[in-house]
Amino acid sequence: MGLKYGVIGTGALGGFYGGKLARAGEEVHFLLRSDYHHVLQNGLRVESVAGDFLLPSVSCYPSVANMPSCDVILVCLKTTNNKLLPDLLRPVTHENSLVILIQNGLGMEEELAAQMPELSIAGGMAFICSHKAGPGYIQHLDLGRLVIGLHTTTGQTFLEQCCSDFERAGVPAKLAANLGYARWQKLVWNVPFNGMTVVLNTTTDQLMNNKATRQLAYDMMLEVIEGARQCGYDLDVDFAQKMMITTEKMTPYAPSMKLDFDNRRLMEVQTIYSNPVKMAREAGFEMKKVQTLERQLRFIESTMISTN
Amino acid sequence: MGLKYGVIGTGALGGFYGGKLARAGEEVHFLLRSDYHHVLQNGLRVESVAGDFLLPSVSCYPSVANMPSCDVILVCLKTTNNKLLPDLLRPVTHENSLVILIQNGLGMEEELAAQMPELSIAGGMAFICSHKAGPGYIQHLDLGRLVIGLHTTTGQTFLEQCCSDFERAGVPAKLAANLGYARWQKLVWNVPFNGMTVVLNTTTDQLMNNKATRQLAYDMMLEVIEGARQCGYDLDVDFAQKMMITTEKMTPYAPSMKLDFDNRRLMEVQTIYSNPVKMAREAGFEMKKVQTLERQLRFIESTMISTN
Repeated sequence: MGLKYGVIGTGALGGFYGGKLARAGEEVHFLLRSDYHHVLQNGLRVESVAGDFLLPSVSCYPSVANMPSCDVILVCLKTTNNKLLPDLLRPVTHENSLVILIQNGLGMEEELAAQMPELSIAGGMAFICSHKAGPGYIQHLDLGRLVIGLHTTTGQTFLEQCCSDFERAGVPAKLAANLGYARWQKLVWNVPFNGMTVVLNTTTDQLMNNKATRQLAYDMMLEVIEGARQCGYDLDVDFAQKMMITTEKMTPYAPSMKLDFDNRRLMEVQTIYSNPVKMAREAGFEMKKVQTLERQLRFIESTMISTN
Repeated sequence: MGLKYGVIGTGALGGFYGGKLARAGEEVHFLLRSDYHHVLQNGLRVESVAGDFLLPSVSCYPSVANMPSCDVILVCLKTTNNKLLPDLLRPVTHENSLVILIQNGLGMEEELAAQMPELSIAGGMAFICSHKAGPGYIQHLDLGRLVIGLHTTTGQTFLEQCCSDFERAGVPAKLAANLGYARWQKLVWNVPFNGMTVVLNTTTDQLMNNKATRQLAYDMMLEVIEGARQCGYDLDVDFAQKMMITTEKMTPYAPSMKLDFDNRRLMEVQTIYSNPVKMAREAGFEMKKVQTLERQLRFIESTMISTN
C-alpha cells in the first residue's frame, strides 16, 4: 500500500520534491498559503533540468484544518517558521506518522521532539538549486538529491519506503546512517558562505577571489569541523579543503541566506549559527570566528526588522 | 631656547596641535598639500570648544624640500601614508630630531625605526574629537589631550620640553611611561568600534543598543587585553568594562575608520588590526574574533579600491 504524503510549505523545495512524488503517482497533499488559489486553478508547474512537468490538478489546502492525516510529512518551511510546527503538524499526523524536516542548520529535530515527543522525526538535507519563480511555479536549475536520516528510534519503515518512492520518482534519496554527522557536514559550507555573503553583501566567487576572506572561510570550515568532532561526529579535516575546491569551481552564487537578506525575509540565524555555536560550546569548544559572524548577523537581523 | 617644530600633515590633528603651539608663540613649520595656497593667503583657522583662533600668517610649505630642519616633528598623517615617511622626514630632521607619530594602531614606531635607525622616535595618542571642516579650517569639538611615549632610548629631553610647550599652549600632554602599554590600551576601544561600524555600516550607539554586537564588542576588548598581556603589557581586564560604560555614555559616534570608509579613503587596517593580530600571534595568542574582523575589512578594502 502506498504512503500518504503531506507537504508543509510548497516552495522551491516542497513544490519540487512533492511535485516529483505526485507526478510519479503517489498521493500527495500540499499545504499552500499565498499560492493556494493559483494552484487550485492552474495546477503546479515545475520547470526542471530533469524534465519540465505540470500537475494540472493537485490536492491542495489553504490550511492544515482541511488536510487529511498523512503517513509522511515533508516539512519544507524555512526554520524561522518552526515555532508554528506543532500547530501545523497536529492535524496532519497520526500515531505512526513520520515527519521529515527538509531544512538547513542544526537542532530542529531536537526542538520538535521536545514539543511532540510521540512523533517519528527525520531530518532531510536537500542538495539542490531550485527556486520559486512565480505562484505555483518552481524552477529547478541543478542537482536535486536528498540525504535523509532518522532522529527518533521509530519511523524506519516509512523512511525506507519514502526513499524508494523518491528514487522511483527520479529523486536520488540516500539514507544517512547518522543524521547529526550529515547535518554538521552540510554546515561546513553553509556557515562561512551564508553569513559572509550577507555581512559583506557579496557572492561566493568574490569571497573566494579575496585572499583574506578565502582564508577566513577556510578557517570557519575548520572551526565547524572541530565543533562537530567535539560533539562526537568524526568529520574529516580534509573535508574543508574539498569544500574550498568545490566552491572555487562554482559559478557566482548567492546562498539562501543572502537571498533572504536581499528580499528582506527572516534569516535562518538560529539554526545555521546559534544552535551549532551553542552545541559546540556545550561540548567544550568555542567556535570564535563563527560566533563573530553570528553576532554580526544578529545585528543585521535587528536592523532589518526595525525597517520592515 | 625654544624648540623648532615641524608638522607633517596639517589636518584635524596637525592643524589643531600645531596651531595651538604656533598660537602660543612657538616656531612651527607646517607641511600642507591641497590646502597650501589657501593657508598661505588666508592663514589657519581653528574653531575650538576651548576658544576659536585664526593664525593669519603661518610658516607653511608645499613640500618638505623647502622646510627647515626641525627639533620636533609631529607626524599627523594617516598610517596608510607611512611608507612615505623616510622621504618626508629626511629633509626636515637633524641628528637630534625627535619624531612624534601621533597616529592610531601599533607597529608604526618599529617600522620607522627600522627604516631610520638614527632617529629619535616617540608615539603620540590623541584623545580628541576634531575634523577638517574646509581648507585650512579645523573644527575642534571635544577633548584634546595627548599621551606621548618614547620609543627610542634617545629623545627624552626634547620630549619633555615638547610636553611643557603643549601644556603652556593649553593642550594637556602626558608622558606615557610605557608606549607599548599606552598603544595597546587605546586599541581596546579602537579595535571593536572602528571595524564594526564599517563592516555593519553603523554607529557606536547602534552597536551598543544591540545585545549581540554589544557582547561582541566586549569580547573583542577582552581579546585585545589578552593580546596585550601576552605581549608583556599588563592591561587590566576591568578596562574593558570601563570602556563599555564610556561608550554607552557617548553620543552616536562614527570612528575615524568609518569616516574613511564613508569618504572612500584608505582605512588603517594594517596598524589597527593586522599589526596587533600579528604581534599577539607571535606572542602565542590568537585574537580570533579580531582576526575575523580584520579579514572582513581586507575584503571591504579590496572592493573600495576596485571601484575607485
